Amino acid sequence: MNAVDVMQPGVVYLVGAGPGDPGLITVRGLRLLQQAEVVLHDRLVSPLLLAETRAGCEIIDVGKSPGGHAPAQEEIIQLLIRQARAGRKVLRLKGGDPYIFGRGGEEALALAAARIPFVLVPGVTSATAVPALAGIPLTHQHLSRSLAVVTGRTRPRSYPVPENGAQAEDPLAHLDFTALAAIDTVVVLMGVAHLAAFARRLQEAGRAPDTPVAIIENGTTPAERIVCGRLAEIARRAADADIRPPATVVIGKVVALHSVLHPAIPPSTPSFISSPDGD
Amino acid sequence: MNAVDVMQPGVVYLVGAGPGDPGLITVRGLRLLQQAEVVLHDRLVSPLLLAETRAGCEIIDVGKSPGGHAPAQEEIIQLLIRQARAGRKVLRLKGGDPYIFGRGGEEALALAAARIPFVLVPGVTSATAVPALAGIPLTHQHLSRSLAVVTGRTRPRSYPVPENGAQAEDPLAHLDFTALAAIDTVVVLMGVAHLAAFARRLQEAGRAPDTPVAIIENGTTPAERIVCGRLAEIARRAADADIRPPATVVIGKVVALHSVLHPAIPPSTPSFISSPDGD
Repeated sequence: MNAVDVMQPGVVYLVGAGPGDPGLITVRGLRLLQQAEVVLHDRLVSPLLLAETRAGCEIIDVGKSPGGHAPAQEEIIQLLIRQARAGRKVLRLKGGDPYIFGRGGEEALALAAARIPFVLVPGVTSATAVPALAGIPLTHQHLSRSLAVVTGRTRPRSYPVPENGAQAEDPLAHLDFTALAAIDTVVVLMGVAHLAAFARRLQEAGRAPDTPVAIIENGTTPAERIVCGRLAEIARRAADADIRPPATVVIGKVVALHSVLHPAIPPSTPSFISSPDGD
Repeated sequence: MNAVDVMQPGVVYLVGAGPGDPGLITVRGLRLLQQAEVVLHDRLVSPLLLAETRAGCEIIDVGKSPGGHAPAQEEIIQLLIRQARAGRKVLRLKGGDPYIFGRGGEEALALAAARIPFVLVPGVTSATAVPALAGIPLTHQHLSRSLAVVTGRTRPRSYPVPENGAQAEDPLAHLDFTALAAIDTVVVLMGVAHLAAFARRLQEAGRAPDTPVAIIENGTTPAERIVCGRLAEIARRAADADIRPPATVVIGKVVALHSVLHPAIPPSTPSFISSPDGD
């Protein structure tokens, strides 16, 4: 066993929970989770993972306030610092990978500034695993040799509702569509709310209207739904199907492989994580 | 336990081994590995993972022929098909994530064409985990809101040595440097061999010469080495330090966070994967 697999008091473990399916947490992540004295978890983390914590572990849901991310983030950081200073074994469980659009970097920087030791445990990011389990390899030697991952919206703090009734700041202003149009495969996380604008701008920047697109709602879970279409029509299709967050959008030729590679064995409902027969 | 956690005969499991550190395989990946009757593995897969196979498992190293990838790839596929048709429990263990520059998509397509059922188990990709464990979050709400992942060379098959002594085909021809120059963070896998050309072209396309760059050799393993510098000088620094593959290159402002976030607890040498005390 690696030294980092034995949890230390007063240390914060920033752990990626993976993309939703609890079997996709790492071996190290699960081992640490089973030792934690306090767990602070995001909204999209599987209850089956939380059930792996030991008796008496304090479980704190810090993902409960949609729309109120900015103050909540500061509160989460203060909570992590307080728990670590109290000498507890602290685990911060984040959806996907902590450092891919998960604000894990900001949390790590705050811990470093407060001189709280922390250990980062990478996770399987939704950006790659959700398409993969939908039968879409993001790279392919003839179809896709470059991959981009972006978010489909900036954080609420970046565009507060204007008091004077003026239009809110452009939620896609952080993206260079000319660049994205030239990347073979583009994955958009949190891409549902502004999908129509995203697809329109990508076409204006030169991406072909018939580029294949897939939207995967609740990817890697039993509630997974997939909608496919062309870039020009995908927003309408997503609206028709009432696709809602969380969803992952994949744009590029590789999406066409979905019809061939969709899993031979469909995902089933997992009942628990720990193996009952000790394997 | 999920149904896909119980290995079926005649099915090929395409499993991501993670970025090198054996603790970063997924729980599902390890469970399947412990059931396999035959394992075909890549060159960079940890021996500690292979040690997890059960007694009598046949282990086939299919990563032994650098430079001869094209025929080897077809042989690997034929071997997978043959083993599956023989009704064995077949596991194909690939470094990182099978569908991120790992040729896993091509293998899955070949299996589908041969009507061999397969199950994909995503893994933690080196593209995200190697930088993360080097203290580099690839995204950050103020420093990086777009991420690109590319390879620093095309496959040997794409540019065979010319018989007439003419210059070999451009190994970076698959990349649009104008697009990459406009993406906040760029990760280059297999980026050592053509690093100087890559850095030069990125600057010609408009990327600032003082952009921070990190090169991580043998990332996530005890042999990890990190070299940092500016885009204009990184190739010389890498050469001075004699950096060799496998290495991951990260380009962008987030690289500057490395000095703050480098892990508080350094990686130690793992001795085994399975927990001896049953936790």
